[in-house]
Amino acid sequence: MKHAVVLLSGGLDSATAFAVAKAEGFAVHALSADYGQRHRVELERAAAIAKTMGAIEHRIVKLDLRQIGGSALTSDLAVPKDRSTDDMNHCIPATYVPARNTILLGLALGYAETVGACDLFIGANVLDYSGYPDCRPEFLTAFENLANLATKAGVEGARFRVHAPLLKMTKAEIIREGVGLGVDYSRTLSCYDPDAAGRACGRCDSCQLRRKGFAEAGVPDPTVYV
Amino acid sequence: MKHAVVLLSGGLDSATAFAVAKAEGFAVHALSADYGQRHRVELERAAAIAKTMGAIEHRIVKLDLRQIGGSALTSDLAVPKDRSTDDMNHCIPATYVPARNTILLGLALGYAETVGACDLFIGANVLDYSGYPDCRPEFLTAFENLANLATKAGVEGARFRVHAPLLKMTKAEIIREGVGLGVDYSRTLSCYDPDAAGRACGRCDSCQLRRKGFAEAGVPDPTVYV
Repeated sequence: MKHAVVLLSGGLDSATAFAVAKAEGFAVHALSADYGQRHRVELERAAAIAKTMGAIEHRIVKLDLRQIGGSALTSDLAVPKDRSTDDMNHCIPATYVPARNTILLGLALGYAETVGACDLFIGANVLDYSGYPDCRPEFLTAFENLANLATKAGVEGARFRVHAPLLKMTKAEIIREGVGLGVDYSRTLSCYDPDAAGRACGRCDSCQLRRKGFAEAGVPDPTVYV
Repeated sequence: MKHAVVLLSGGLDSATAFAVAKAEGFAVHALSADYGQRHRVELERAAAIAKTMGAIEHRIVKLDLRQIGGSALTSDLAVPKDRSTDDMNHCIPATYVPARNTILLGLALGYAETVGACDLFIGANVLDYSGYPDCRPEFLTAFENLANLATKAGVEGARFRVHAPLLKMTKAEIIREGVGLGVDYSRTLSCYDPDAAGRACGRCDSCQLRRKGFAEAGVPDPTVYV
């Protein structure tokens, strides 16, 4: 059986990427990072998703990015609310975490090497949300190139692949794809600023995109909002 | 003043890379990773080096690579002792940490972005020790390429550079360079398996290379061995 490492945040995109990896026949090793994010309830959701979706194992790597800071997700900066679609499409937001996907894919690469996997899945997506530089195709291609040079497995002939199956899909397309694959989106949490009970704020960029996605997909939105 | 992030492990190479960065006129932000290494006394040495060598700040990012495992430095695997020079030159050792330099440079990149630095220094070295794939020039070039695509700063026009000033130097040349720049090597620890008092084992690959380096450089070895 082919093995893959799937980066699992507990959000809608990564749960869908997980479902795609399973549908493509991969045995899934799920990896989450406890990086000091303010929305820590994500990690509980990630664990529940990994379990119900049949991960071979789920590892949570502690990584305290608060030491680095620079983001609304890892510091005291305010999470932007009620931004316009235009702002979302053109301004890199305060929720950008410096070098996050480089670090997360690095962890996924190390994990993949220890379990003998060559395939990494990430729920990166550019169409709906172009603000994050490390979600762009050219970044993912550069990481794939790096992975083959960075590792013992690569030196020995392995060829790593970075799969970003959602890269060019709209949020609505992602949701339709996931529903078709049986993803239970009520278990996922996309909000950058949920309350202690894990209810979504409904107003951050991520909530706005998610809500719009369900509406456009014609799928009932199972999200519990504040 | 130009700012740089220097990856500082507490060992001989990274202390020398720090000295080179200073000599080149950079204000140095030192970054160490507490990655669950068995030789944790390294971190105390890193802190002391950062302080005495005049770092603007020193951050230690907690990152539990034991969750990933796969290395003698982060698991119960035995640290190889008394290996021949031939083995060292041709076999990737058990002390290889999967994707370590990808992850560490990713952290350095995130840190650099938050402090407005574009220059990353790493004490990677290939000549004396060719076993680690992520110390090779082609890896470092690939990371530099990745860095410019991965970041908000890169999108906005910054050009990141990965400096590996020791890359093609022998251990003896590194030591001579460092002595010329005033590095106090008695503060550094290279051993993969020191005792609780921080004394070097003298037999792991790293100890053997260090000892040979001081001998070849004609510099008294200040290392305290068990």
